[in-house]
Amino acid sequence: MLRLCIIGGSGHYRYVLEGLDERVALVGFAAGSDGEDLSKLATMLQERGIAAPRFDDWSDMLDAVQPDIVAVNCHFGDHARISTECLQRGHNVFSEKPVATRLDELATLIDAHEASSQHFAAMFGIRCKPWFLAAHAAVQAGRIGEVRLMHAQKSYKLGKRPAFFASRERSGGLIPWVGSHAIDWLQWLSGESFISVSASHSRAHNGGNGDLEVSAQCLFQMSNDIAATVSIDYLRPGTAPTHDDDRIRIAGTRGVLEVREGNVWLLNDEAQGLQNLPLLPERSIFASFVDQVLGTGLCVVSSDDAFSATYASLMAREAADSGVTQEFDA
Amino acid sequence: MLRLCIIGGSGHYRYVLEGLDERVALVGFAAGSDGEDLSKLATMLQERGIAAPRFDDWSDMLDAVQPDIVAVNCHFGDHARISTECLQRGHNVFSEKPVATRLDELATLIDAHEASSQHFAAMFGIRCKPWFLAAHAAVQAGRIGEVRLMHAQKSYKLGKRPAFFASRERSGGLIPWVGSHAIDWLQWLSGESFISVSASHSRAHNGGNGDLEVSAQCLFQMSNDIAATVSIDYLRPGTAPTHDDDRIRIAGTRGVLEVREGNVWLLNDEAQGLQNLPLLPERSIFASFVDQVLGTGLCVVSSDDAFSATYASLMAREAADSGVTQEFDA
Repeated sequence: MLRLCIIGGSGHYRYVLEGLDERVALVGFAAGSDGEDLSKLATMLQERGIAAPRFDDWSDMLDAVQPDIVAVNCHFGDHARISTECLQRGHNVFSEKPVATRLDELATLIDAHEASSQHFAAMFGIRCKPWFLAAHAAVQAGRIGEVRLMHAQKSYKLGKRPAFFASRERSGGLIPWVGSHAIDWLQWLSGESFISVSASHSRAHNGGNGDLEVSAQCLFQMSNDIAATVSIDYLRPGTAPTHDDDRIRIAGTRGVLEVREGNVWLLNDEAQGLQNLPLLPERSIFASFVDQVLGTGLCVVSSDDAFSATYASLMAREAADSGVTQEFDA
Repeated sequence: MLRLCIIGGSGHYRYVLEGLDERVALVGFAAGSDGEDLSKLATMLQERGIAAPRFDDWSDMLDAVQPDIVAVNCHFGDHARISTECLQRGHNVFSEKPVATRLDELATLIDAHEASSQHFAAMFGIRCKPWFLAAHAAVQAGRIGEVRLMHAQKSYKLGKRPAFFASRERSGGLIPWVGSHAIDWLQWLSGESFISVSASHSRAHNGGNGDLEVSAQCLFQMSNDIAATVSIDYLRPGTAPTHDDDRIRIAGTRGVLEVREGNVWLLNDEAQGLQNLPLLPERSIFASFVDQVLGTGLCVVSSDDAFSATYASLMAREAADSGVTQEFDA
């Protein structure tokens, strides 16, 4: 049985707990960041009857329990440093996104992964939703022909955010935290890579959340002469029926596909008018990572995709900060 | 009664004919561009029982009939030159968009308008649709608070285009012809102005239409730290229920408003969940121009808006051509 530790309680540890099965045992958890609040994680463990010990120090924990897998989801600014150390110590890493909040730390993380024989993935768990899996299958099957243009949207309720969101250094900002999902969809659904990005973001009307941006727009130039835009915001009203409003529209040479409100809509030459595509069963991103660690399958998100979506997000943030289009390293 | 001429049959002369009333008489029409096809205009005039004479030369026509208003809608590359001459001769001009396809010709047109005492407007007739009027009224009434982020979409069926569309010189390309509508919505609905633009467009898979781009993306930085994206394409499949799929989503400090499929959806603090806003009665853009000429009202599109939307469209095309962000003149 694989031994699992969780570092931090600030991200999607829920993906891990919901993906636990007879192959994996949680053997410890600890904070990853100074002053991190683990109360919600502790409560969820208790509710699920998981009696793993809590450690005061994550490094001591790794020494003590020698886990096979470490799930990292502390304050976002600490992800890269901790993941790098976990890889160097020989642990497989399942990291919250963004896997890094600075380009230099991302480069160090990628180097550590290449130098290791460990597996690494990022919690781009929205890929596993029935509507995104169905969209991916439809595009892969050629039902919109060749992809030509994409627009993605991430819109969240702002609500009451933990204090560390207000710090660029600790949270990384809007584009890496919220936008990286949509940026990942672009590469995943099209199979194309990023060439350059222009972007804009704004802290205006951020409800007293310090450095936090509440609106952003990105324009990516991608391979094969494809362009993609991404709208990102914390402007979804409290009266909205759901927390998030995730969307993507992909126009291709044979048709147009849209994900909206948990539906997949297709317009192409197969039928008159809109088709509402059947959804696919939801998957567990963590269970697929366990498959990869055990050699029985591949994670829904590869390490390459984790790194490239993070790189693209940080380049978009840099473009927004500087007002200058950023050209990607090949 | 005002005397009206139509130059060209390549644009939305339908706006003019549908907006005709007892205040205006059509006294002549002529081609504006070499080899221009006027057969559809002639047929529509016949169907409507309008017995206006056809002239071989538009300049001779103006000399002969001395119209109060000239509607210009020939090949798009000829709009600016003809409108400029009409203004200089003392005629009010109701021009198809884009009102110019080159920045130097736009500047000359603006100068001619400023030097004249004539009225000028552009056929941004989509503003007059019940859903766009309702959206404008809702934003003006503050129902989404302060505008923070916008995304607009123009998607058309490519179909069979007249030959001049294949020439950049004669048609101006995708962004000015199709995109300028959406670019106009941005300024009209938000009341903000453009500061800079990054953009991309592609001629790939254009069905043998020469220079014509079939997909484009724009990112506008606007006043008040607002960013807006625009997706533009000719990729709407022939099986779609309508020719166009016009959309805009505007997120503000108090809510989110969307125009989609002829509906206006509002999410704000007034109610739980989505509100489907009542539509407003459709207007006639040409009738409103006649109001302005007669001094009894204002055109739905001001000359300033006609010029600024065209300028923004041409700057976006330049950004896409060059790959370089374009900063706007104040």
